[in-house]
Amino acid sequence: MGYWWVNHNKTFTQEIEGAYLWSPKRESNNSRSQFYENMRLASPNDVVFSFGRSTISYVGIVSEYAISAPKPTEFGAIGTNWGPEGWLLPVGWWPMPSPVRPKTLIPKLGALLPTKYSPIDPATGNGHQKAYLTEISQAVFSTIMRSGDPLGTWSNREEFRTEADPSMIGDRVDDTIEEAIIADDSLSATEKKQLVDARRGQGRFRMNLRRIERRCRVTGLENQTLLIASHIKPWRSCASSSERLDGSNGLLLAAHVDRLFDRGLITFSADGKIIVSPRAKRDDLHNLGLSEALNRDVGAFTPLQQKYLEYHRAEVFLEEDA
Amino acid sequence: MGYWWVNHNKTFTQEIEGAYLWSPKRESNNSRSQFYENMRLASPNDVVFSFGRSTISYVGIVSEYAISAPKPTEFGAIGTNWGPEGWLLPVGWWPMPSPVRPKTLIPKLGALLPTKYSPIDPATGNGHQKAYLTEISQAVFSTIMRSGDPLGTWSNREEFRTEADPSMIGDRVDDTIEEAIIADDSLSATEKKQLVDARRGQGRFRMNLRRIERRCRVTGLENQTLLIASHIKPWRSCASSSERLDGSNGLLLAAHVDRLFDRGLITFSADGKIIVSPRAKRDDLHNLGLSEALNRDVGAFTPLQQKYLEYHRAEVFLEEDA
Repeated sequence: MGYWWVNHNKTFTQEIEGAYLWSPKRESNNSRSQFYENMRLASPNDVVFSFGRSTISYVGIVSEYAISAPKPTEFGAIGTNWGPEGWLLPVGWWPMPSPVRPKTLIPKLGALLPTKYSPIDPATGNGHQKAYLTEISQAVFSTIMRSGDPLGTWSNREEFRTEADPSMIGDRVDDTIEEAIIADDSLSATEKKQLVDARRGQGRFRMNLRRIERRCRVTGLENQTLLIASHIKPWRSCASSSERLDGSNGLLLAAHVDRLFDRGLITFSADGKIIVSPRAKRDDLHNLGLSEALNRDVGAFTPLQQKYLEYHRAEVFLEEDA
Repeated sequence: MGYWWVNHNKTFTQEIEGAYLWSPKRESNNSRSQFYENMRLASPNDVVFSFGRSTISYVGIVSEYAISAPKPTEFGAIGTNWGPEGWLLPVGWWPMPSPVRPKTLIPKLGALLPTKYSPIDPATGNGHQKAYLTEISQAVFSTIMRSGDPLGTWSNREEFRTEADPSMIGDRVDDTIEEAIIADDSLSATEKKQLVDARRGQGRFRMNLRRIERRCRVTGLENQTLLIASHIKPWRSCASSSERLDGSNGLLLAAHVDRLFDRGLITFSADGKIIVSPRAKRDDLHNLGLSEALNRDVGAFTPLQQKYLEYHRAEVFLEEDA
């Protein structure tokens, strides 16, 4: 289990209410940031301290790996220099019985904080402005919890974790985009329906896709009733209507393969190899009966498909950490 | 490929516009009807003549096997003596270039029509009031098509079939019910959200389910990110909010297993055996890597789960024809 600490800065309210964390993928100068890379390292059941307004008021439990998602619309004008696509990490928040000002614990905390990428200054206890998600030790976690939850009510967190249920986060992002599409006066009723259907892998998108793909490339399944019309570049991340409806932006996949692909646990190389994420657990792939199928050559992709697959490899696929 | 003929009677408009056929499951005296059993025999890519107002104006292509679904709300007061739960068969309709009055073809058709369960009287050509979905021969099909589509434009039907896309029929039924839930003044905002989330296998329903089930009983998969919280008695068919949120009305299933279970291609016996529908194709199960897993004993169910499984076996599972 991992321990994390997030400095929300301006997005505290949105991230607590929305049950997530969101960060851009890179700095505004396009360089990598360890604080953002950490979004992809956080794993289900990891815990996160929420630090905002100089106080830790919430403890969170990560419910799923981060997904690639556009900047939440509720951020409004915040972070205009951030890239439009980032990491969205679903987190269920639990209000700490006695919110903690870490500054007051510096005598104990100072020596326990990491020397690199510390969320607060180990000497003064002031928050580091540039920090976002940072890793902390179990010792830091326990020290703060003893102060913020003296009765140890946190230990009953299994109950809490299922209560919070932030696992629909992807759906919620999609819902917001769908509402915007439906409210868009520049689109006809037919176009709106096509785009909404495309989200579910149906309608015009599925029809366009079926002109290009016939079966699940991984399992060989051909039964249309059992196949999912899966977007390569996720529906929520598409830049335009034409990307959302483009048959080249899709694959027909068996439902369990679709799930792995959607979560970035598998992707495809330009030359038709299946790439398995280091995050995918061997046991899971074995239970899914895919151990052998994942060694298959899935065949050539068209140049248009390759463009979308490049996006999937870069933005959706969960790589080893940088 | 199968050939069918439906006498819509009063539901012509709704069924053509909605891209489906719907029938009750049994006669009002609860006896079986071959016309209704036929709904479960129709297979994807089978063709159907739509007969209404003494005329065949549409040819349909079945896009998926029938699903168990409540009577469409757009039927309104029609069929008040029908049971509330019936068979919904997704059909894409194609307007026939020259609508055909079968009565005018009786000299040719009479001898070709079936002796039992004929849709019209082979002598007079009058529609049989009690008939709904009936099987016809390829000869009847061709005879009518030569008259209704003399230029043979029908042969380009692959294009049409994907255009029609009635495969979202289950979603559309769910959408209608969801709208009714959202408009229901007797429910609080929290209750509405719980019910809408339950449709997607999330929120309170998933939480309740996770108190009872831990893993996919078929594959052994334990990774919550990859598991679907699947209703045993379908969400759309639940009689009450409590059934929709009841953890005992669910199973955690791997996505491909969920799909087979949802489509009635597998079910479970009271003593923990997996029952595979005669409609499930061996090739598909093999491609899904499930050939072995389906022989497993999935373990005991609670009495409450058994109640819902009884419903699934009776109403959702696709049995051999009666």
